[in-house]
Amino acid sequence: MLSKNTVKFIKSLHQKKYRSESGKFFVEGEKSVLEVLQSDFSVEVLLVTESFEQKHLRVLNSFRGELIRVTQNQLEQVGQFQSNDSALAVVQMKSNSAFFPEKEDLILALDDVRDPGNLGTIIRVADWYGIEKMVFSPQTAEFYNPKVIQSTMGSFTRIQFFYEDLAQVVDRWKLPVYGAFLDGENVHQLQKPAPGILLMGNESKGISPEMEKKVTKKITIPGFGHAESLNVAIATAILCDNFKRLMGS
Amino acid sequence: MLSKNTVKFIKSLHQKKYRSESGKFFVEGEKSVLEVLQSDFSVEVLLVTESFEQKHLRVLNSFRGELIRVTQNQLEQVGQFQSNDSALAVVQMKSNSAFFPEKEDLILALDDVRDPGNLGTIIRVADWYGIEKMVFSPQTAEFYNPKVIQSTMGSFTRIQFFYEDLAQVVDRWKLPVYGAFLDGENVHQLQKPAPGILLMGNESKGISPEMEKKVTKKITIPGFGHAESLNVAIATAILCDNFKRLMGS
Repeated sequence: MLSKNTVKFIKSLHQKKYRSESGKFFVEGEKSVLEVLQSDFSVEVLLVTESFEQKHLRVLNSFRGELIRVTQNQLEQVGQFQSNDSALAVVQMKSNSAFFPEKEDLILALDDVRDPGNLGTIIRVADWYGIEKMVFSPQTAEFYNPKVIQSTMGSFTRIQFFYEDLAQVVDRWKLPVYGAFLDGENVHQLQKPAPGILLMGNESKGISPEMEKKVTKKITIPGFGHAESLNVAIATAILCDNFKRLMGS
Repeated sequence: MLSKNTVKFIKSLHQKKYRSESGKFFVEGEKSVLEVLQSDFSVEVLLVTESFEQKHLRVLNSFRGELIRVTQNQLEQVGQFQSNDSALAVVQMKSNSAFFPEKEDLILALDDVRDPGNLGTIIRVADWYGIEKMVFSPQTAEFYNPKVIQSTMGSFTRIQFFYEDLAQVVDRWKLPVYGAFLDGENVHQLQKPAPGILLMGNESKGISPEMEKKVTKKITIPGFGHAESLNVAIATAILCDNFKRLMGS
């Protein structure tokens, strides 16, 4: 049964403050919940409707946390989806531990991407292009924000990431840094790039002056029309596509 | 002075029903209003703050419609922006008249793209790549929806478009139709394509079965990871980038 305390607790996770305090976040919707159940995230509480339970008995059989049966109405009251007749999972956050680059051809670094929808879309794009490692400046949107999680469409389960001052990270790794600018080398004319870091900047300010100094190659998406700029998630997708085309699979 | 009737009228334009009835829509924010003032759209009423007026005297000098001086607070009450200390324009819709392809290398066709944010982002992408002509299925989001206008970042002023049954349009134009599918030819391996129509499908259903029959070449964005799909605006951007790379400027 769904207790008042559980309802209150899940509702508190809509706010960053309580996510940070508890170290937990929530995931909702059939696809995302299934993906998180089959990932290396630890799911602590799982709210399921009867239809979700019937449909996914096998996956649920191996679930070791607390399972609570709920109605669609209850799900919609605790989550943020207007309509949800499947499931919601309360999940433990991962620790913010830095990784070291291994054999990756491309690591994505985000310099203050603030909009949760943009961050989520970028994570989905990274997953499409097989980019598994990302690093975020401290001012980048919070990974565990429900809007980020939702817009990744499940891809958040397959990304390794941490938050740290990007200048320090770049100094430590000593890899080429490809930065997206309006006056760089045309990415359509680029030769096969060496493995490195693709750095994307803030929605309105672009890459910060401090990080611009760390960029070893400025690149540009060629424009053929009159728009002054592209949305950062769109630009990330186009650059990943070009880099993967040039680097091969 | 801003009359109660004008307030009521602009507020009514938040709803599609009243936009259709009046044949008018609204545009807000400094950049978008400046772009629409300098476009071939007819601006009928212009609400400006003192600071906007001071800053853009030259543009306003050639404005022939009704100019109303307002406060930031008044702007925010009639528009949809949370914060707007510049301007809002009431603009006449264009007629829905079909064009005929001329020397364009690429025309964009949208088959039931329903989300206003996606449509707006696609229009901005088209403008970046110099694609000036677009055709929309009747079920595609409404061009004049404030969310569409906002997310184009002014690019809506530079696009020719109309709504019509896409099968009829394609039959009439007799051009190659490139359709985005999960099982088409890898766009990274495509040879230089002949001028034609790039067809993008609905957010969840993709290209309709009826339109699939009209596709002369199925194309695919190669995936290197595990995401099952890409957002339609992201996919459109990646395909436009590849087509423009292959076609040249």
